[in-house]
Amino acid sequence: MNVNGQRYRTIWTADTGQDVEIIDQTRFPHVFTTTTLKTVEDAAHAIRVMQVRGAPLIGATAAYGVALAMRADTSDDALMSAYSLLLATRPTAVNLRWALDRVRKALLTVDEKDRVAAAYKLASDVCDEDIAINMAIGLHGSEIIANIARTKKPGEKVNILTHCNAGWLATVDWGTATAPIYMSHDGGIPVHVWVDETRPRNQGAFLTAWELGHHGVPHTVIVDNAGGHLMQRGEVDMVIVGTDRTTASGDVCNKIGTYLKALAARDCGIPFYVALPSPTIDFTLTDGLNEIPIEERSGAEVSSLTGRTKSGSIETVDIVADGSNVANPAFDVTPARLVTGLITERGVVDASQQAIAKAFPDRISASA
Amino acid sequence: MNVNGQRYRTIWTADTGQDVEIIDQTRFPHVFTTTTLKTVEDAAHAIRVMQVRGAPLIGATAAYGVALAMRADTSDDALMSAYSLLLATRPTAVNLRWALDRVRKALLTVDEKDRVAAAYKLASDVCDEDIAINMAIGLHGSEIIANIARTKKPGEKVNILTHCNAGWLATVDWGTATAPIYMSHDGGIPVHVWVDETRPRNQGAFLTAWELGHHGVPHTVIVDNAGGHLMQRGEVDMVIVGTDRTTASGDVCNKIGTYLKALAARDCGIPFYVALPSPTIDFTLTDGLNEIPIEERSGAEVSSLTGRTKSGSIETVDIVADGSNVANPAFDVTPARLVTGLITERGVVDASQQAIAKAFPDRISASA
Repeated sequence: MNVNGQRYRTIWTADTGQDVEIIDQTRFPHVFTTTTLKTVEDAAHAIRVMQVRGAPLIGATAAYGVALAMRADTSDDALMSAYSLLLATRPTAVNLRWALDRVRKALLTVDEKDRVAAAYKLASDVCDEDIAINMAIGLHGSEIIANIARTKKPGEKVNILTHCNAGWLATVDWGTATAPIYMSHDGGIPVHVWVDETRPRNQGAFLTAWELGHHGVPHTVIVDNAGGHLMQRGEVDMVIVGTDRTTASGDVCNKIGTYLKALAARDCGIPFYVALPSPTIDFTLTDGLNEIPIEERSGAEVSSLTGRTKSGSIETVDIVADGSNVANPAFDVTPARLVTGLITERGVVDASQQAIAKAFPDRISASA
Repeated sequence: MNVNGQRYRTIWTADTGQDVEIIDQTRFPHVFTTTTLKTVEDAAHAIRVMQVRGAPLIGATAAYGVALAMRADTSDDALMSAYSLLLATRPTAVNLRWALDRVRKALLTVDEKDRVAAAYKLASDVCDEDIAINMAIGLHGSEIIANIARTKKPGEKVNILTHCNAGWLATVDWGTATAPIYMSHDGGIPVHVWVDETRPRNQGAFLTAWELGHHGVPHTVIVDNAGGHLMQRGEVDMVIVGTDRTTASGDVCNKIGTYLKALAARDCGIPFYVALPSPTIDFTLTDGLNEIPIEERSGAEVSSLTGRTKSGSIETVDIVADGSNVANPAFDVTPARLVTGLITERGVVDASQQAIAKAFPDRISASA
């Protein structure tokens, strides 16, 4: 999408066709920079420290990580070691495993001499497919928005609440939860987005607000506590969030706090949608609460926060009383019963085992 | 309660018996200081900028504010003008009006020459009564905690989640939501408190964590997003929050985000209690969602945050993407249907019009 009027993706190959360029998301929203990945270790580091984040972009970065590994050493050993290194970077993201399995499987059938080119082609395919998927999600989701717009007075905005960043910065382009928003906006449907700050890492205030702003989409940042109140007061027409992992039964694992918004939407009669590319569905799981391990991240993410001082410097400040314990579960699970629908590349699917199986019969047999 | 091993209240008269001393809560948790109020303007300022906050402490400060006004001028005009000035400082806090009405009514029957002494006595009475009320809330609430403790294995902690600061720093002493916690802890019942950070003003991480820590109560700070997840996983035995204003029908207006925790507690079958002194009940209201005006506070509270840098200085940092709109509703309303019980100075009362009327028949007739 647009940054300072120029079209960007989040990951692309440098002009040499070898090095990989990414937008470094750790310094958002105050500093916009790009970083070059030259080795598989660079790629693993980028995922681990969240220079790249978001399930689809993590998958794309992992695929490019394997290509960078092949560039240094095309052996089976190097391939397996790149696979292990990259897989260990983030435990929750199912796209990571999906992209790595795909690339490894394909490369094992390719002669060593052809592996570098094949690996770059595979990574490029992963990126192009992500974009195609997100555009399909955008088209299906924007129909929902258009239907709500039809119930409004002319010019009245459709108010959409989102949590965390399932935006284009979390994907290669368009985003998942944001694709319907960008398409509606670009198509002339007036939308306004309530952006949850999304503590502790503030991806909403740092990333979603930044990308919506650069693309010209009207939006308002709120603390995570405010969404329920806005829903009670009729200020929210729909919720769209992304997901890191969805079970075959429609349970949705997403950024911590998503479950609370789903509860409020249900209580206030507001539709709650989850936008997801089908690789995010883990067909081996049917009980999200009991089967999905929740990443416990560093307490420092809660007890300190980085921002820009009045003088323009970037500073990290402590924001918890000295000596207090801190806990930091990074995700929660929203049970399928609270989800109005899954906006996928194949259309809007009920969050039920039956409907998901019907929409993705090929994926089920592939994972069996 | 204890600060560095010494017993404190949040407000008291200086040794002269004239000036009023308060703990300045704006610099928490990094700086613990006290401030002297010499005039009614000082008192109004302290309430407005939240050097003092929390419904009961606001009421006590307003009462002392009238005393400070009388010290300068004992006329009816001065009394009325102090009343108006103080009442305008915070629109939501019903204790403010309650304390001011009480003091004004009493002083109007007192000769001007006796008003200074009478005003200080009234303010002191408001404080002593607040403490007595909180201790009664503590006794009733600690029975609930003791009952949960009996279902646990020996030594296993009772896990209590709280939002914002309804602690002793929000009252004259003991707190409302914390009174049962302090009494249980002091009485040897093992408790552990999940402290919601409570964005945007971080009263949980700044104040509740600080006061629990100083009193030696085990606790863990979490972001506001985490409570639902912890409830799903069985890590929370009960929720206790305070309230700024409760309707005669049991709807609870409290810090923004309380409603979300009440929804999660209901969804997970966890008891959700509201601790409140009866002056917090507004008997003129029966429909919290439609009748309670919600204070919209400055967007700067959302878009910037103050903390301590590694070098020890206190800095305010911007934490929202440049150019984004910000909204900051300060409270929300939790409907009575989500409230397990109101822990009052007269016992635990169902959050229903009938039960509240039965517990406080005298208060109803007084407000009629």
